[in-house]
Amino acid sequence: MLGYAFMGDAHSRALAATRQLEPALEVELVSISGRDETAREEARSRLGWVEGVADWRLQVGDERVGLFVNGGPNAAHAEPSVAAARAGKHVLCEKPLGRDAAESWAMLQAAEAAGVVHATGFNYRFVPAVRAARELVASGELGEIVHFRARYLQSWGWDAPPSWRFDKEASGTGAIGDLGAHSIDLARYLVGEIASVSAVVRSFVPGREVDDAYVATVEFECGAIGTLEASRLATGRINHHAWEINGSRGSLAFDQERMNELLVGGRRGFATTLEHGDWWPPGHIVGWGDTFTYEYLHLLGAIAGAHELSPHGATFNDGYRCAEVCDAIVRSAASRAKEEVSYR
Amino acid sequence: MLGYAFMGDAHSRALAATRQLEPALEVELVSISGRDETAREEARSRLGWVEGVADWRLQVGDERVGLFVNGGPNAAHAEPSVAAARAGKHVLCEKPLGRDAAESWAMLQAAEAAGVVHATGFNYRFVPAVRAARELVASGELGEIVHFRARYLQSWGWDAPPSWRFDKEASGTGAIGDLGAHSIDLARYLVGEIASVSAVVRSFVPGREVDDAYVATVEFECGAIGTLEASRLATGRINHHAWEINGSRGSLAFDQERMNELLVGGRRGFATTLEHGDWWPPGHIVGWGDTFTYEYLHLLGAIAGAHELSPHGATFNDGYRCAEVCDAIVRSAASRAKEEVSYR
Amino acid sequence: MLGYAFMGDAHSRALAATRQLEPALEVELVSISGRDETAREEARSRLGWVEGVADWRLQVGDERVGLFVNGGPNAAHAEPSVAAARAGKHVLCEKPLGRDAAESWAMLQAAEAAGVVHATGFNYRFVPAVRAARELVASGELGEIVHFRARYLQSWGWDAPPSWRFDKEASGTGAIGDLGAHSIDLARYLVGEIASVSAVVRSFVPGREVDDAYVATVEFECGAIGTLEASRLATGRINHHAWEINGSRGSLAFDQERMNELLVGGRRGFATTLEHGDWWPPGHIVGWGDTFTYEYLHLLGAIAGAHELSPHGATFNDGYRCAEVCDAIVRSAASRAKEEVSYR
Amino acid sequence: MLGYAFMGDAHSRALAATRQLEPALEVELVSISGRDETAREEARSRLGWVEGVADWRLQVGDERVGLFVNGGPNAAHAEPSVAAARAGKHVLCEKPLGRDAAESWAMLQAAEAAGVVHATGFNYRFVPAVRAARELVASGELGEIVHFRARYLQSWGWDAPPSWRFDKEASGTGAIGDLGAHSIDLARYLVGEIASVSAVVRSFVPGREVDDAYVATVEFECGAIGTLEASRLATGRINHHAWEINGSRGSLAFDQERMNELLVGGRRGFATTLEHGDWWPPGHIVGWGDTFTYEYLHLLGAIAGAHELSPHGATFNDGYRCAEVCDAIVRSAASRAKEEVSYR
Repeated sequence: MLGYAFMGDAHSRALAATRQLEPALEVELVSISGRDETAREEARSRLGWVEGVADWRLQVGDERVGLFVNGGPNAAHAEPSVAAARAGKHVLCEKPLGRDAAESWAMLQAAEAAGVVHATGFNYRFVPAVRAARELVASGELGEIVHFRARYLQSWGWDAPPSWRFDKEASGTGAIGDLGAHSIDLARYLVGEIASVSAVVRSFVPGREVDDAYVATVEFECGAIGTLEASRLATGRINHHAWEINGSRGSLAFDQERMNELLVGGRRGFATTLEHGDWWPPGHIVGWGDTFTYEYLHLLGAIAGAHELSPHGATFNDGYRCAEVCDAIVRSAASRAKEEVSYR
Repeated sequence: MLGYAFMGDAHSRALAATRQLEPALEVELVSISGRDETAREEARSRLGWVEGVADWRLQVGDERVGLFVNGGPNAAHAEPSVAAARAGKHVLCEKPLGRDAAESWAMLQAAEAAGVVHATGFNYRFVPAVRAARELVASGELGEIVHFRARYLQSWGWDAPPSWRFDKEASGTGAIGDLGAHSIDLARYLVGEIASVSAVVRSFVPGREVDDAYVATVEFECGAIGTLEASRLATGRINHHAWEINGSRGSLAFDQERMNELLVGGRRGFATTLEHGDWWPPGHIVGWGDTFTYEYLHLLGAIAGAHELSPHGATFNDGYRCAEVCDAIVRSAASRAKEEVSYR
Repeated sequence: MLGYAFMGDAHSRALAATRQLEPALEVELVSISGRDETAREEARSRLGWVEGVADWRLQVGDERVGLFVNGGPNAAHAEPSVAAARAGKHVLCEKPLGRDAAESWAMLQAAEAAGVVHATGFNYRFVPAVRAARELVASGELGEIVHFRARYLQSWGWDAPPSWRFDKEASGTGAIGDLGAHSIDLARYLVGEIASVSAVVRSFVPGREVDDAYVATVEFECGAIGTLEASRLATGRINHHAWEINGSRGSLAFDQERMNELLVGGRRGFATTLEHGDWWPPGHIVGWGDTFTYEYLHLLGAIAGAHELSPHGATFNDGYRCAEVCDAIVRSAASRAKEEVSYR
Repeated sequence: MLGYAFMGDAHSRALAATRQLEPALEVELVSISGRDETAREEARSRLGWVEGVADWRLQVGDERVGLFVNGGPNAAHAEPSVAAARAGKHVLCEKPLGRDAAESWAMLQAAEAAGVVHATGFNYRFVPAVRAARELVASGELGEIVHFRARYLQSWGWDAPPSWRFDKEASGTGAIGDLGAHSIDLARYLVGEIASVSAVVRSFVPGREVDDAYVATVEFECGAIGTLEASRLATGRINHHAWEINGSRGSLAFDQERMNELLVGGRRGFATTLEHGDWWPPGHIVGWGDTFTYEYLHLLGAIAGAHELSPHGATFNDGYRCAEVCDAIVRSAASRAKEEVSYR
């Protein structure tokens, strides 16, 4: 694993948690890398990694490593992930895959060429209610899908401490890649490919290199239309990742802060149903950290050959396609016109 | 009054209800017009109008008439309203004012030239919680406004009976003018003028002349960005006119189906507060029909000279400016580019 | 009408509003009574009553009066209502009917003997969602009813100005008769007669003569069990009159602050449905004042002989039976034992 | 550990999860016991216990065992827990502690005499929002507490398969000990000791030995009054453990299905705040399983001497005192009178 901050905790705990959930492969926490020795050693010891190293190249060359998890800053996604894939390691890279579509495309090409299992860390696909939504859409019960709208609203951006997340070189974009990428991935997972976008992208806080917020309209290949929105400046909204799908016979609505609830809309209104997977009895909810555990259970199954990673897990191709939508958002903001989303 | 359908009920009952609420002027229900004699006479008798006439021209020429209320189909907004104004009648015309900006502009010019009080029927300005929101924004308590998002979602469009609302000549637009106009008016009332829009407009139901839905991004003159959306095809949504304002120090959220609640967002989340005006004790809510009563109390005060109609009441200028935004939405859908909103 | 305060407004406006809703009888606002001449005259003029008198006895003897509406303080319910009935007037008396069961019983006896239509002002029966709930229960769709729970929580009692509502002689009880009576009436309307109660009754604010709050368990004759609760001291609760019914096949839940919503529970959770009567299109809600309009439309139909007042309207018998439950609550608090509810 | 069903999963996963959360003591999963060899071995292997044994006596006599976790049926709580304590093992026993107060008292006496750390499995004390509520009450911010109401509603009882949970000998009570015990413990944790109860207890489903539901009023030693309720027959309610505290200056409300939200009530209404501990960034919620992890982190700290188990962890004394309230509920249902809660 590369990275030992917030994402280090989430991934390490989830990897360990798979051990009691009949994983297709047994997990061993071999090596964690990061440049700050004190912080890395603290994380290594606390999270139970066997060893810590300063340079991820040592991990890529380590025979004991079968899966390379990249939880580093966005600028550190491409080179280590590509190197790991070329060394025959399976790779899970956090989202956004690259800082733009070109970088993401190169990552996809390398991973495909290497023949390894490659995953992008879109963990929200593994919220049980999201999976249930996907199944409802696929079943045709909602009829013809006409609308999708998503907003991912947080508010910490008003007085945030300095971070690589505000540095353009390190992060690529701001709210677009950090928050918007999740909405775009769910849009693709639930409704299908996005054909065009028209967006406004804005930095409000003086001195900020990256976007604080964006808004966009989208056209889907299936004919549906919708809106996408993300902001780090939505006072009162903490982690409000909410989306809604409207179909000719039914609708679905969801809010990540109440991630165990799937609202199912019919002719007369919406019913609140609890969808929290099958670990616990009805109404005993799962948490955000559990989405990573589900993600790894699925990934381990794919590595073991029990199933394909796709469609439920996001591959580097999903990471790349999401990046094309993000790029189109940026282009549209500049061109002040609708931009088609095209893939290489 | 012109019109005797759904809008006839709402307006007639509200006009009568003002009588017990210390109106600036006493209301007398003089004359109702409409071409179907049976239906008109039924409405006249039930709603308490003194007389019914087939032709609105008789009302425009009637000395007893001081206020002309136009609740007819969109295509019948311009000519009667203009004639009434020219005859010196004060005019309240339902929204959308005209079928497009040009028609609305002509109505505004005529009303201004006649020197009468002119009002556009944006009744949602008279929801007590909306008025409270306006005052909170104006007080500066929310700080710098960065986002506004509104969606007006209904679902009756999937299997609606034939209606002038689907006829392009009679209505101008579909969801845009019917539902979207309300959101646009509140956007202007709460946040200020809209500088540009980029939109997708779509008819989904085969054979429909007008739009079933639109989505748009907007830029406000004040710098805020946002999304607007309306649909008649959002299964599960009945009359979901919801908007949210995010500012640097506070946020507000509202849903017309729970029109007595104003959600006030601060650093830690949103508080649900009840805002239902001062007729009843705390927590005793008002209804949709009551917004018309408030609207008429305000209009009667403006006619009596007690206060200006604007800013709390919408004038023909507000109706016209809303129409410019609607036109820009239509243009943008065709041009696939952002369209500036400009005013004559 | 006797009374010109808060209840005077609600009743007067509702009486006038019936005029445009095809009432079975035409309403004329003949006479309003009250001792304070200035306040009475202000109300009379504002609300449109033809004349004002100091003494209700003049109304009882007035040939023009067909319906006597008693909106006075609780201590003024019995004598005027009985006198009016004996004079052949139909009577609508606000709740609680009498200050205790004995007083209520005497009122019932007098009204029955006089042969007039008699109604107790349980206006919440006329919330459209409550009526829909009654019909769902009656239809058997919920199966066997096993639970009913209701709470009526307000918070103004902490720092309320002096009022007859805190005076034992004037009011009988505090939260029990003021708020609890509404819950008890809906319990009876929706689930049936209450067989026993066990209660705690408490005054928390020093110097207060009447109860601030009560809690009770109840057994219904049908076998269901439940809880009832009311308080004027529930900080944060404004007019939270919420109840829930659980049956073997379905459940219903309601909150007066969102009085247009009826939550319908099935195997997987609750669906929010809008039930707001048939005045307006779907999703266009009614308000608290409208419940009085519905109440009068029903009462006028009963007076005209179009239907019985019961079961949808509450008679003096319903007022009396509610009072027996209230009395049993008071007895149980003193005896610290379950008290059977028995009727004369 | 004794037990390998649902509780076995929850406890085993939580014990393992502590390893990455800086536990005061390192956890080793030594031995799991249970009579069905196939099921036990499946659980042992899956959950990572070193060995499985048929008889808990082997665990009590095992030197490697430092903590005995009793997750068996209620009838298997007392004897093994007492034996473990006498053998010097620290003990965590699931709730309800014993099947009645007498059995619970004997367990408490044995554990106290043995000088071990003893805990009752009231895991809901370890919901971050519950802990935050306790701190708000303790801070005095809510002022004088006047009301507490709790309901724990589920619906699986209508068509549940046979289970020891319906067997009086095996379980003691039904909804009272299974669900009600949690509410009673939180009532004590948040508001203080319960002085009296008055209850109705009912079995609705034919042939059922234990109660399906109970309702009760309570008086607290601090003067507050309230209601308690639990049911396995509340159609539409899945795991609805909701409570509310009203104080003179503030209120709190909570629902276990949305266990990351604490509603904070003030003069104007309730604010929804997210309280999910400090593992993840704001708005990234924890799940039901995480409450066990928090519980074990706390217990391990108490065993290591870093802090007392009480007040945040529930001891056998808390389990015993809860049982006295449960017994009083049963007595009150029989006596049809209020029953004082007294402690030995």
